[in-house]
Amino acid sequence: LKEGELESFLSAHRPAIDDLLRRRFFYRPSFEIYGGISGLFDYGPPGCALKREVEDLWRQHFILEEDMLELAGTNLTPEVVLEASGHVAKFTDFMVKDEEDDRCWRADKLLVESMKEIINNKDTTEEVKEECRKIKSLADTYKEEQLHEIFTRFGIKCPGSGRPLSYPKPFNLMFGTMIGPSGRQKGFLRPETAQGIFVNFKNLYDYNRNKLPFAVAQIGLGFRNEISPRDGLLRVREFTMAEIEYFVNPSNKDHHKFQNVAAMVIPLFGQEQQELQTPPIYITLEEAVTRKIINNQTLAYFMARTYLFLRACGIKAEGIRFRQHMKDEMAHYSSDCWDAEILLSIGWVEVVGHADRSCYDLTKHAEKSKKNLLAAETYPQPRIVDFIDMKPNKGVMGAAFKAKNQLILAKFQELSELEKASIKHAIEEHGEYELTIGEESFKLTRDMIKPEVTQKSVSQETFYPSVIEPSFGIGRIIYSILEHAFRERTNVKEARSYLYIPPVIAPVKCCVLPLSKNPDFDQFVDQLKETIKRKSLSCEVDDSSTTIGKKYARCDEIGIPFAVTVDFQTVSDHTVTLRETLSMTQVRIPLENVGKVIQKLVFSQMTWENVQCTYPAFATEGSTN
Amino acid sequence: LKEGELESFLSAHRPAIDDLLRRRFFYRPSFEIYGGISGLFDYGPPGCALKREVEDLWRQHFILEEDMLELAGTNLTPEVVLEASGHVAKFTDFMVKDEEDDRCWRADKLLVESMKEIINNKDTTEEVKEECRKIKSLADTYKEEQLHEIFTRFGIKCPGSGRPLSYPKPFNLMFGTMIGPSGRQKGFLRPETAQGIFVNFKNLYDYNRNKLPFAVAQIGLGFRNEISPRDGLLRVREFTMAEIEYFVNPSNKDHHKFQNVAAMVIPLFGQEQQELQTPPIYITLEEAVTRKIINNQTLAYFMARTYLFLRACGIKAEGIRFRQHMKDEMAHYSSDCWDAEILLSIGWVEVVGHADRSCYDLTKHAEKSKKNLLAAETYPQPRIVDFIDMKPNKGVMGAAFKAKNQLILAKFQELSELEKASIKHAIEEHGEYELTIGEESFKLTRDMIKPEVTQKSVSQETFYPSVIEPSFGIGRIIYSILEHAFRERTNVKEARSYLYIPPVIAPVKCCVLPLSKNPDFDQFVDQLKETIKRKSLSCEVDDSSTTIGKKYARCDEIGIPFAVTVDFQTVSDHTVTLRETLSMTQVRIPLENVGKVIQKLVFSQMTWENVQCTYPAFATEGSTN
Repeated sequence: LKEGELESFLSAHRPAIDDLLRRRFFYRPSFEIYGGISGLFDYGPPGCALKREVEDLWRQHFILEEDMLELAGTNLTPEVVLEASGHVAKFTDFMVKDEEDDRCWRADKLLVESMKEIINNKDTTEEVKEECRKIKSLADTYKEEQLHEIFTRFGIKCPGSGRPLSYPKPFNLMFGTMIGPSGRQKGFLRPETAQGIFVNFKNLYDYNRNKLPFAVAQIGLGFRNEISPRDGLLRVREFTMAEIEYFVNPSNKDHHKFQNVAAMVIPLFGQEQQELQTPPIYITLEEAVTRKIINNQTLAYFMARTYLFLRACGIKAEGIRFRQHMKDEMAHYSSDCWDAEILLSIGWVEVVGHADRSCYDLTKHAEKSKKNLLAAETYPQPRIVDFIDMKPNKGVMGAAFKAKNQLILAKFQELSELEKASIKHAIEEHGEYELTIGEESFKLTRDMIKPEVTQKSVSQETFYPSVIEPSFGIGRIIYSILEHAFRERTNVKEARSYLYIPPVIAPVKCCVLPLSKNPDFDQFVDQLKETIKRKSLSCEVDDSSTTIGKKYARCDEIGIPFAVTVDFQTVSDHTVTLRETLSMTQVRIPLENVGKVIQKLVFSQMTWENVQCTYPAFATEGSTN
Repeated sequence: LKEGELESFLSAHRPAIDDLLRRRFFYRPSFEIYGGISGLFDYGPPGCALKREVEDLWRQHFILEEDMLELAGTNLTPEVVLEASGHVAKFTDFMVKDEEDDRCWRADKLLVESMKEIINNKDTTEEVKEECRKIKSLADTYKEEQLHEIFTRFGIKCPGSGRPLSYPKPFNLMFGTMIGPSGRQKGFLRPETAQGIFVNFKNLYDYNRNKLPFAVAQIGLGFRNEISPRDGLLRVREFTMAEIEYFVNPSNKDHHKFQNVAAMVIPLFGQEQQELQTPPIYITLEEAVTRKIINNQTLAYFMARTYLFLRACGIKAEGIRFRQHMKDEMAHYSSDCWDAEILLSIGWVEVVGHADRSCYDLTKHAEKSKKNLLAAETYPQPRIVDFIDMKPNKGVMGAAFKAKNQLILAKFQELSELEKASIKHAIEEHGEYELTIGEESFKLTRDMIKPEVTQKSVSQETFYPSVIEPSFGIGRIIYSILEHAFRERTNVKEARSYLYIPPVIAPVKCCVLPLSKNPDFDQFVDQLKETIKRKSLSCEVDDSSTTIGKKYARCDEIGIPFAVTVDFQTVSDHTVTLRETLSMTQVRIPLENVGKVIQKLVFSQMTWENVQCTYPAFATEGSTN
């Protein structure tokens, strides 16, 4: 129920929210004086300050509290890296075009829109509606020929012109460029920050003194040349991401701090709930991991940390859920994926991904770069393990293979136990085995090798670490914070909208307001500003000639949690009023205490109730405006 | 003298500095496993942490303390913006090529290298040497034909191959790309962050409630496709900049806080000193502005703030100077420019520019976008000003120009006073004037207009604000901090190198070291880590089995200013030792005081001497290792 209330409140107030964010320059389309570029936005002063605060909180919550290493890699990325990662071949969306005027659409999104239209048409039969619903839910899984078939079957044309749609073609979403003056070194702007961490794995592993597990975080830009950017900050072409790559031994994905969160309950919208169309389940993370609903402790631990982070950002509990990827939605190498979704005016939106990427990326980069990207773990005690000794008869082999014999003997060293087992089997069953090296092959016979199972003592294992990746879209989180912060005052004469952003991330912590233009107030205003800034708290002064009520309203609009007012009493007794936005209540407080009190309020070392107990109340505002 | 000592210390230790920075992963070439890409570097954990600390200090020092607005614009920039700013036409370096193997050189840099070689050749005559010195100093002022002539005259060939150099060609340094799916919208990665502020001028001016002066800051990336990147972090293709655009009425460039810095003395290497080849002068900023050595108070104020910032970053006083641009070095619209230069192992390097950009950029964007980017300032009292009234005789004009007459009358409204004065002069002297509108021209005669000087009361003026721009290269500052932080211990058995970075920007504030692998120490290590992190201070634990002396050396190498050691006494009395890197002295301190004391040390609320007075000294390290 609460979820439904939130959604209808947000969608009803969407125009008011957009108006406020634009008017107060939280963000606006980039290059507006030149008509703007879709999918690009600039953060103005309050938006930029909020972004920085969110990033700082993120660093505190993840990097500092979880002892992560931080990396800052480049955005320019040479082609070879993104070939290895698979982005050059596969980072595509299907595009359809109006061949005449060159307008383009992302095929799956156009399909969803078209299906919605058909479903909403009162002439559509129930049977067709059912089919359209199915197509709509599968839209992002179709290949080009399926998309084309459906567009054709339903007679879907180019929006606007009504001309036929082109055949769907994959469009690579990376921005390309040329690095260096020769014009021959192709590069791209990175589509994610993760690859910069993977290519540095060895350096980071060394930095961590070759110990696993460890986590590396990166806050930086990602670029995607979206075919049809839309929904403001939610689908853009240049965006800030914060990604964590947690490197762990694939044979043990437990997390040493899991017990701290094991009893937490977060809404899990698993594969089963999605299939059965039932609501998310509420069980402890302990149970979720034990029942294998969440694949492992580390994934669950980070989901819990994400939940706490989003709550600290002021996202409402009823507007958060964790949606598991369906089996056909995950990359083939991925063992489990959970998106943190936030309920916004346009519905549930993915803002954080939590994926188990297994060892896919490291393996690919090791292959392509021919560098060793393995980790090693020393056993507490050496282990006795079976292995197959090939027992070559070097005399017989030398006579048969001549100069090539060294090559074959070297190859034996590289064979896996599985490969050796099949050679052993072949030699024992058929007396011979055809060994392939590059393009040559060599027939091994029973007189050449006598593979035999034996044992050896092993003190360490080497392996490609698995990677658990929480990946945050900072822009989407900022937009979510702003929607969830939006409120309306109905207890004042004219309804007015404002933002309530948690003080710890509020873009401006406090404003200092002289009650009027009286020059006697100036020295107190300056003194307050200095006191507050000395605590490293941002602070704005509004010394315009507006009424104090309008000044409060202006501060409320950009989510400034506290306001200090200098009035006539200040001149006589050096006290000021301190007002809290959410409750609109005020206290009278000595000027010299203001900096310290606001600092404690911002960092949650004191509550507003504490302040109200310590200092006398001041006449409420409700009556005066 | 001290300057010379610094330079020779740094250049002698350059290999040791490079080795340390690489080994401890302050930064490394990006994509090293693929062979690296020149001009691109990744910051590893200590480098990335240092970068963040420097940015935080910059924000505190400039944005917070100077009440600036902060903006975050996009890197992707459509062509039209950079056409307006002049970058598409003029942001170029001359390039020469080996046509056969496609190697490229930046012509001016190759010229400098070639001249150095000729000068250093013992067979060169004194006369030629003198000419080469002159060419070397002018290398970056030559046009293509001059470069070609000099290369030819001195017989300079492609380094390595000895083949002829191509004719120099301008090479645009911007990275190009295509925005959107159509492949028709050309864009670039921004070469500086400034343009993002200029195109938002109107939004920012509104946000500031239409008051001048105000400053907007932006920390973000810039991209330049350098022809020959070199010198590590000093000349790279992707870099972080921090730029301030201070918008001010061109008729008054005083700064309201100038008196705070007027008595400061900073080394000024002005045009005069450079021409006469004399050392920088040391005079107060007050005197420098009064004598017009520095063009205005605002420029001088920011130079002072930059000086204080660099000093807070640990840059040595003898390694900072402010070099004024020579007249032919400045952009034509610029009235004065001063670079803060830092002395490094390779000589003096520009790290911060301070330029008076006048109203150039706003004018260009207003022209190109056809938007009003003017500011207005209301006079305290209305002013009486002269102006020319055209006094048209509408009857005569209407008869002569028919439908076009409205166009001409509208044009009168747009004319500047200067233009009206020349029309007045022409009419009075010659009885006629040829007025051009677009491609048409109209002959105005004495019977049509009677221009006359009259007066009007004006209550405000509108104008394009001037822009004073301090522009910081964050990567260059970081590299400078690291070189100036480099020290060597000679008071220990083996000379060993370390970094002394001021605690406020140290990448890691403190390390916690168990004296040995004794499990009794674990709970104290954990407790200390939690105490320190709760103060938002970064902290590393080294629980390896290395000796305590080696652990200290490791911490010293990455510039961790404080180390806390848990030893046997800790177990019995809950005290630990606290060590300061620079002095290598230690005190014994109760465990529960550690967090608070380190916090005060980091934020300069306490000195190490204070700590030594409060807590008992602990046996010095010198004797033990």
